[in-house]
Amino acid sequence: MALNDAKDSTLSALLDPSPQPNQKNGARRRYRRCRSVPTDLILQGNNDAVLPRYESIFNVHPSFWQVTLFLALYLGVGTVCFYLVKDQIRGQKTNGILDAVYFCIVTMTTVGYGDLVPNSVPSKLLACAFVFTGMALIGLTLSKSADYLVEKQESLLVKCLHINKKVGASDLFKEIEENRVKYKFILNLGLLVLLMVVGTIFLSRVEHLSLVDAFYCVCSTITTLGYGDKSFSTDAGRIFAVFWILTSTVCLGLFFLHLAELSTERKQQSLVNWVLRRKMTYIDLEAADLDDDGVLSAAEFIIYKLKEMGKINQEDIALVMKEFEDLDVDQSGTLSASDIALAQSYFR
Amino acid sequence: MALNDAKDSTLSALLDPSPQPNQKNGARRRYRRCRSVPTDLILQGNNDAVLPRYESIFNVHPSFWQVTLFLALYLGVGTVCFYLVKDQIRGQKTNGILDAVYFCIVTMTTVGYGDLVPNSVPSKLLACAFVFTGMALIGLTLSKSADYLVEKQESLLVKCLHINKKVGASDLFKEIEENRVKYKFILNLGLLVLLMVVGTIFLSRVEHLSLVDAFYCVCSTITTLGYGDKSFSTDAGRIFAVFWILTSTVCLGLFFLHLAELSTERKQQSLVNWVLRRKMTYIDLEAADLDDDGVLSAAEFIIYKLKEMGKINQEDIALVMKEFEDLDVDQSGTLSASDIALAQSYFR
Repeated sequence: MALNDAKDSTLSALLDPSPQPNQKNGARRRYRRCRSVPTDLILQGNNDAVLPRYESIFNVHPSFWQVTLFLALYLGVGTVCFYLVKDQIRGQKTNGILDAVYFCIVTMTTVGYGDLVPNSVPSKLLACAFVFTGMALIGLTLSKSADYLVEKQESLLVKCLHINKKVGASDLFKEIEENRVKYKFILNLGLLVLLMVVGTIFLSRVEHLSLVDAFYCVCSTITTLGYGDKSFSTDAGRIFAVFWILTSTVCLGLFFLHLAELSTERKQQSLVNWVLRRKMTYIDLEAADLDDDGVLSAAEFIIYKLKEMGKINQEDIALVMKEFEDLDVDQSGTLSASDIALAQSYFR
Repeated sequence: MALNDAKDSTLSALLDPSPQPNQKNGARRRYRRCRSVPTDLILQGNNDAVLPRYESIFNVHPSFWQVTLFLALYLGVGTVCFYLVKDQIRGQKTNGILDAVYFCIVTMTTVGYGDLVPNSVPSKLLACAFVFTGMALIGLTLSKSADYLVEKQESLLVKCLHINKKVGASDLFKEIEENRVKYKFILNLGLLVLLMVVGTIFLSRVEHLSLVDAFYCVCSTITTLGYGDKSFSTDAGRIFAVFWILTSTVCLGLFFLHLAELSTERKQQSLVNWVLRRKMTYIDLEAADLDDDGVLSAAEFIIYKLKEMGKINQEDIALVMKEFEDLDVDQSGTLSASDIALAQSYFR
């Protein structure tokens, strides 16, 4: 096997059209390219050629304007609806329109203080409809968009943290890439604490609650618990509440999301380390050998290890494999320029 | 290029130690194995050899008993705490211990009716502590476990749906694999509707609410809105509530999770289809050629396409590549049995 391998590499070196001045250096050099080029491709080549097309076809993050539009539409319709049935809502009232917006926000975020409650069949059914759509809007669109906003602020945080050290743009990029989840979590936690402090101060100043009551009301609101014994009862309080409740409930939701992400990433990282540390055996060698030639190419090794890490599965591989076999017109087991030319003339 | 390729494959056929009776058939046959063996390996070989080790080291799903233990511990501590401060909680009271459990559930699920509210500084701070830990318990552990339970019931649903058709176990397995998210969503939706119907009937029968009020209270509870104008006020009602609130709020949470998964999967699927349909160009050929030999092996093609689909990224590849280079002791550009033997003696 070892003899075969040596013969193989010497002969393939002879056959290989690329220049290889020295066998030992040549073999090393063959892999220098794959460490640098794909990264370059992502940053420059492929980025222009492929990624913009992805972006336009598959918008993973809902656009900022789209989300704002949805939210404005939802709040607009909600406010009009609840203003129209304002006589069928009982409780602590202030200004008609303000109460409608406030009730809409308290309902969509599922805080549900109960300081304003629907008091008729139509208003009750309206509230049911608005809580479900509100949950969907926040859970499916708004939180994704907020997550994206937090991610966008990461580079700012990392720059602040490294303000004293001289770091290049590429180091900064790498630092962010490696600790994306951690920095997102820190940023989120900071924002959450800020929102809680602002809320507590506001409630104690404007709504004249004691500090404990203000803190209790803040906790009861951001968790969407909303017992309702303490809530916003003044005009100024409800104007503040409209913005603060929406921001802080979404922020706490994201906090738990990032916490879960962090724990998943830690587990994933230890799995990756375990897979990389694990010694290759002859059984692995045979199992990973996709084209059955007795040796593992770098690409075969990568696929085997990524599969072991759970990053890709057999279905993904089988799907692309089928495509490969269709493209391999001359059935040589490899795709060459001639295959592509043949495929293009074949499909024409 | 085409000439080079033909020469390459003929010569490599001569060098290849595996029997290839006919060039045309041989090339086809080389890939027969990679379509079948890796699946077999997952189901039999690797399953015994590698997967159980993962399972024991990296428990992705928290075990059922672990979650039950956590929940029991949480509810136990919560009940004792709130029972001890029961004189500092005002509102509609029934039985002391029952009220403590009920208050604990209403708090941890963030329903927060407000029919029982803490009325002193210690009880308020206790409620704050319990709502945060309760959210964490439900969001990070319980919902994952519930998701896993739903997944486990999938095969049952698929069997029911195909009861009239004769399908083999492997077809069933494939059907589930391909539509995992869809079936999870359907199952979840069914369970949610059932819970809502049961809740509405119970509230109208036992708590003597009108049908609209019962439905309104159900919606207000499962969304964790909990205005509190309608809630469980009898002994029987609160016993039912303890089980029903926990199940139904988790179920609605999962519903939105599965809805998001479904939409993500649809988007991912159209990206996969687009990547597979897209014609390979000479630029792609060059970019995908990891070992720079002018042709694409099946494994190189798979890596390139999976990267385009966003399933793997350059970091993953670079990480495994580094490992490959370390293992490739003779620097031949391929891993052979001799490399493994060398690596083992080298590290010894």
